[in-house]
Amino acid sequence: MLKLQPMNNMPPFDTVSIALGERSYDITIGSGLLTQAEAFAGLPRASGALIVTNTTVAPLYADQLSRCLQSHHQRINTLVLPDGEVYKDWSTLNLIFDRLLQDASDRKTMLYALGGGVVGDMTGFAAACYMRGVPFVQVPTTLLAQVDSSVGGKTAINHPAGKNMIGAFYQPLRVVCDLATLSTLPPRELSAGLAEVIKYGPIADAVFLDWLDENLEALRAGDVKALAYAVKRSCEIKASVVGQDERESGLRAILNFGHTFGHAIEAGLGYGQWLHGEAVGCGMVMASDLSVRLGLMPASFVDRMRDLVTRAGLPVKGPDLGADRYLELMAVDKKAEGGEIRFVVIQAMGHAVMRPVPDALVRQTLAACVA
Amino acid sequence: MLKLQPMNNMPPFDTVSIALGERSYDITIGSGLLTQAEAFAGLPRASGALIVTNTTVAPLYADQLSRCLQSHHQRINTLVLPDGEVYKDWSTLNLIFDRLLQDASDRKTMLYALGGGVVGDMTGFAAACYMRGVPFVQVPTTLLAQVDSSVGGKTAINHPAGKNMIGAFYQPLRVVCDLATLSTLPPRELSAGLAEVIKYGPIADAVFLDWLDENLEALRAGDVKALAYAVKRSCEIKASVVGQDERESGLRAILNFGHTFGHAIEAGLGYGQWLHGEAVGCGMVMASDLSVRLGLMPASFVDRMRDLVTRAGLPVKGPDLGADRYLELMAVDKKAEGGEIRFVVIQAMGHAVMRPVPDALVRQTLAACVA
Repeated sequence: MLKLQPMNNMPPFDTVSIALGERSYDITIGSGLLTQAEAFAGLPRASGALIVTNTTVAPLYADQLSRCLQSHHQRINTLVLPDGEVYKDWSTLNLIFDRLLQDASDRKTMLYALGGGVVGDMTGFAAACYMRGVPFVQVPTTLLAQVDSSVGGKTAINHPAGKNMIGAFYQPLRVVCDLATLSTLPPRELSAGLAEVIKYGPIADAVFLDWLDENLEALRAGDVKALAYAVKRSCEIKASVVGQDERESGLRAILNFGHTFGHAIEAGLGYGQWLHGEAVGCGMVMASDLSVRLGLMPASFVDRMRDLVTRAGLPVKGPDLGADRYLELMAVDKKAEGGEIRFVVIQAMGHAVMRPVPDALVRQTLAACVA
Repeated sequence: MLKLQPMNNMPPFDTVSIALGERSYDITIGSGLLTQAEAFAGLPRASGALIVTNTTVAPLYADQLSRCLQSHHQRINTLVLPDGEVYKDWSTLNLIFDRLLQDASDRKTMLYALGGGVVGDMTGFAAACYMRGVPFVQVPTTLLAQVDSSVGGKTAINHPAGKNMIGAFYQPLRVVCDLATLSTLPPRELSAGLAEVIKYGPIADAVFLDWLDENLEALRAGDVKALAYAVKRSCEIKASVVGQDERESGLRAILNFGHTFGHAIEAGLGYGQWLHGEAVGCGMVMASDLSVRLGLMPASFVDRMRDLVTRAGLPVKGPDLGADRYLELMAVDKKAEGGEIRFVVIQAMGHAVMRPVPDALVRQTLAACVA
């Protein structure tokens, strides 16, 4: 693990800025940030704060964060939610509102989302809605949240009829990525996070993909220097995309590379069977295969992606739902428009585009990529 | 009622623009707009639309609006919610989400809020959250909604522990105020709406207050020319205030003149006993009394406000909740900060300010203004 410098030296963290006008903010990345008050310097010192976390993360890091913020707020409360995607719903969200009102929290109260994507999405949405908006800070403790879900301001809860159907674009005041928290992450979840890291290569940065080729084993082993670079570069790319298209009117959709197939896998198996990152990893192989079939990329591209996803510890063969079911599930995906399903495909290494694709070609990909 | 011009002439409506950068929009004001497609010209022609209304308004105006929009959308559905503030909650809001998902509505689907403040607040909040934001249009059918709640982008639902605690600042694409809908408004609700109209005089426009002095009886009688001017001037003032302070960080709070006392009356009696406008009317008399006791205004001011509120058909004596209970209720009001409760008071005719006021002075006002 990276040795921390003494506090009177330069703090050992990197900063990535996300440029959104008056909603701009910084992502700070380093190891041990939950014990460094400097990582939270400059944030408004509201009298009240609520740390929202879950039953898995609370025993590991809630006290650490609370102590670290002691000089920032007069009152710091902690709310521990049940852990799991199944709780990303209205009734759990309402626990946050209940607690805020019980504490007589005013509209300056600061929320801290301490946990993975579910905690971040729900806390962010609660912050967006409580008294029509209170400030919040993301403190992601999973690789997936550090490189993807905590950055960019997408917040939401699920509806029985669809994932993330109810939410808001609402930016945090800061994202604090403490790499030390990844040391307690189960290997399966680290792998799932790597899917979103790998994604940034083909869609935006061929050189980063080369770096990943060389460093994937170091990342899986938890090498902090490698993780620091992977998180930083991922955040830089996401920040650049989101800075150009905050509300997903166009470009931002490229961040969904692999997600159309991935969502079909998640929904088809029932959410929770595969982790989101596992479905996305496999979905990227499928979307790469589709890019080759569209004549955009050479056949070697799909082999390379399959190799990377395998080495990340992720599945490369989709579950056998049947091609009709895949097509049906993808047709209701939010990106479906008109007669053909639209996919994010790779046009050149580091360059993604949205394309409507004929069903016949999608069936070929499914035949090639399903177990 | 104002005679409508034939459609090939200039459409007989006024427009007030609200300047909020890329979120700018127009308020169109006229009689018979629900039968004039021009009132909706220039809005995006999404393939799907959902009119959200309630059991009271639906039989009167839902078909009219649906017919008027027929050339704009391929599919127009209507959702009829139960009527009343008691339904301004999550489970009723969820009926909107359920219906949108049932109709497979995409993120371009347009929502139309056809009704009073409750329909507008809930439909606006649903639009803010469905797929992280779909466009919506306010079609207010009560005076209160036309001059206040439909303008400015405040949307919300209630929480058992507080009104409007969960919501969003989310601007409509347009507000269409059809004055003809006011002809079916019960007199008690017309009076309630007049409270918010009167409010704009003391806080922003002394000349408008003089005009109201001369035209209050015409307004109560439903004179369309008088209503058109009152709605227009109210919207102009609200647009100007909101344009300077969209998210209520300062100036916008002056729109709450009379509301601190008013909320205490509503909460103390139990919501629904007095209409919001009735509580605000009485609250304005109290806040005017407070302005006099603070030495900001001459004693004649409170007499003039009491006369206007009386002539509007609104109560000028607060219910006897006991001074302690009033103070307790106002201390939890969102505007309470530090030891003293902050009130919007009038500093000079047409000019309001926020002031912390010692409890002793508030007790004097309560002694003078409670039944």
